[in-house]
Amino acid sequence: MAFSFLQHLECPRCHAIYNADEQAHLCSCGSPLLVRYDLAAVKQYLNKEMLQRREPSLWRYHELLPVRSPEHVVTLGEGMTPLLPLQRLGPSLQLDLYVKDEGVIPTGSFKARGAAVGVSRAKELGVEVLAMPTNGNAGGAWATYAARAGLDAFVVMPEGAPLITRNECAISGAHLYLVNGLISDAGAIVGRAVKSHGWYDASTLKEPYRIEGKKTMGYEIAEQFQWEVPDVIIYPTGGGVGIIGIYKALQELQQLGWIGERLPRLVAVQSTGCAPIVKAWQEGQAVSEFWKDSSTIAFGINVPKALGDFLVLDAVRSTDGYALAVDDNDLLQAQADLASQEGLFVCPEGAATLVAARQLRASGWIKPSERVVLLNTGSGIKYPDTVQVSVPLLQPQDDLPA
Amino acid sequence: MAFSFLQHLECPRCHAIYNADEQAHLCSCGSPLLVRYDLAAVKQYLNKEMLQRREPSLWRYHELLPVRSPEHVVTLGEGMTPLLPLQRLGPSLQLDLYVKDEGVIPTGSFKARGAAVGVSRAKELGVEVLAMPTNGNAGGAWATYAARAGLDAFVVMPEGAPLITRNECAISGAHLYLVNGLISDAGAIVGRAVKSHGWYDASTLKEPYRIEGKKTMGYEIAEQFQWEVPDVIIYPTGGGVGIIGIYKALQELQQLGWIGERLPRLVAVQSTGCAPIVKAWQEGQAVSEFWKDSSTIAFGINVPKALGDFLVLDAVRSTDGYALAVDDNDLLQAQADLASQEGLFVCPEGAATLVAARQLRASGWIKPSERVVLLNTGSGIKYPDTVQVSVPLLQPQDDLPA
Repeated sequence: MAFSFLQHLECPRCHAIYNADEQAHLCSCGSPLLVRYDLAAVKQYLNKEMLQRREPSLWRYHELLPVRSPEHVVTLGEGMTPLLPLQRLGPSLQLDLYVKDEGVIPTGSFKARGAAVGVSRAKELGVEVLAMPTNGNAGGAWATYAARAGLDAFVVMPEGAPLITRNECAISGAHLYLVNGLISDAGAIVGRAVKSHGWYDASTLKEPYRIEGKKTMGYEIAEQFQWEVPDVIIYPTGGGVGIIGIYKALQELQQLGWIGERLPRLVAVQSTGCAPIVKAWQEGQAVSEFWKDSSTIAFGINVPKALGDFLVLDAVRSTDGYALAVDDNDLLQAQADLASQEGLFVCPEGAATLVAARQLRASGWIKPSERVVLLNTGSGIKYPDTVQVSVPLLQPQDDLPA
Repeated sequence: MAFSFLQHLECPRCHAIYNADEQAHLCSCGSPLLVRYDLAAVKQYLNKEMLQRREPSLWRYHELLPVRSPEHVVTLGEGMTPLLPLQRLGPSLQLDLYVKDEGVIPTGSFKARGAAVGVSRAKELGVEVLAMPTNGNAGGAWATYAARAGLDAFVVMPEGAPLITRNECAISGAHLYLVNGLISDAGAIVGRAVKSHGWYDASTLKEPYRIEGKKTMGYEIAEQFQWEVPDVIIYPTGGGVGIIGIYKALQELQQLGWIGERLPRLVAVQSTGCAPIVKAWQEGQAVSEFWKDSSTIAFGINVPKALGDFLVLDAVRSTDGYALAVDDNDLLQAQADLASQEGLFVCPEGAATLVAARQLRASGWIKPSERVVLLNTGSGIKYPDTVQVSVPLLQPQDDLPA
């Protein structure tokens, strides 16, 4: 039986079809492309019981991933991250509340999923050099997986991106550059370089396979809840690939008949310092406008204009979801609450989802007893600067106070 | 059927027996205590096939862990970390070489295993306040799990311990103190405080349950290789709990009849700047001497005198293993090699194991084609200072060089 049931690429805007076995980037209409599978054949062949005995990584879903040959799989064991009940914060909000913890994955960030599948497929298609802009974590992940695959990687990140992600790129042997600007500036530099040098453009949504890695979060949430999807999934939204991927995964699971009609309401969370998608959602627009002078401590969601904004807005609207922006100070408080009350040291972006849950519960949009999943996109240990610590210094002869 | 087949505590030195359902620390003879199970009953009840359908965490082995009731399990989804083949470095050394990657675990370090099981059992035994010295990662892990359990934690760490581990303790709500000294100074402070205040002493090997968490690395390596143990396991050794635990796990698996007579040769790796166990092994001593003025960039193995030294030496000798010290410069080179050639950004302690493999292969102690596992105890992202990065800064209008 085929390892992958990959069929073709499809434009979600103009519905043009592309050959999946050639390198492809955007549709000629400018839209990102989505990967399509022969789901009817998957439905005949694969069943939930078969999954149970497979290894705890995202590759357990290989029929629904785009890599045709197992020998091209580039893996560091990513996926099947913990889904953890919040035993204090849940009851305090009268919710059945969970965190899907993407801190427990290679590179400490959910970006590993997109990189694992994206790099694997790039390698399978014969790519030798890739290039991308990043706010840090995606660069770290793609540099890491490119090293494992033996590919060359060029990475451009804003000067202000988290320091540890520089380390990841540099030690992995990537060609790393900083830019005195935002990710949009980094993107423009990469765009020119890709054109000049013929490199593979691995920018967010400019190749179709990163979404396929990210969508496995949706499969895992469904599988971990025994195929009973939750009422609400709250997602920190920058480029939006995660929420697009989760929505795509849920639609595929419906077509396989593995989940029912009801979908979780998808919530996109942004920062009040950078909220283009929230603004577009509030105004009923199909696309967002560039957010000027954006700024937030949650660096991963400092994306002033996302290429896939219309897909995010569609995912939110089609599931009767919500979009809201949260304040950096609330986010830091939520980060401390998750650590001290639940033992979860999440990244600032992940903490934003708890702020959103609190606000949506207070407004009544989330009802008592609903099952809600907060998506924590990475580990707090990658962001040492967001924690302010002042610690007493003892001499060896000193005693601890009671 | 019982969740745990816990039987009693036993002193490995004088063979005294203690009640496992009361709080216990060291034996009256001064030795750490080991946890014993009714392995005959486990053998009758549990089989390898039953494990296959269980969740991918260390709690899949709950019959062989000391927590009697599932409701006392304090978990963040730890365990079943990736076991990854080294596809370039392996062939270059003519070895079937793997990394067991403990970076992919809550808190980014193998210390999570000991903390998960140790805190769970402490909670089950009614502990409310625990205290411990640490070189950083153990403190971060125990603070995190204590927060999840709702316990109070006092943590004392050397001023020079990795900064990120301070963050973990502080944000988790632990009472954190630095000491102008080494872990041995921190240990003395904790020792006095425990005596004065009646707190639970969670220092390395001063409670019997941390080993039980760590030993699951041994179970997992065996299970991940379909119960065919490798020829050699190389372990970075500070306090030595990991190597003691792996040896204990292998002995238990033998008693269950799940693995054969042959055990992997266990290799203890230390730094040339702190090598008390290597010195004792070379000199044929049963215990080590305090290593004066110890210093190494691999902070986790800067332990001048380990309470369990005699158990480490026994594990190494009983398996026809080896003990060796490696140089900090070699270790940094090995860290870079693992990242750039294999996509594995390991911690300095983990990198030491590759140096050891190279030296033991060069000396002929490891033979061609042997199956060797390097134990990487944590993620490189927790040690930003060990990577020196110099990155070109671009302006938005600049171009990338080819």
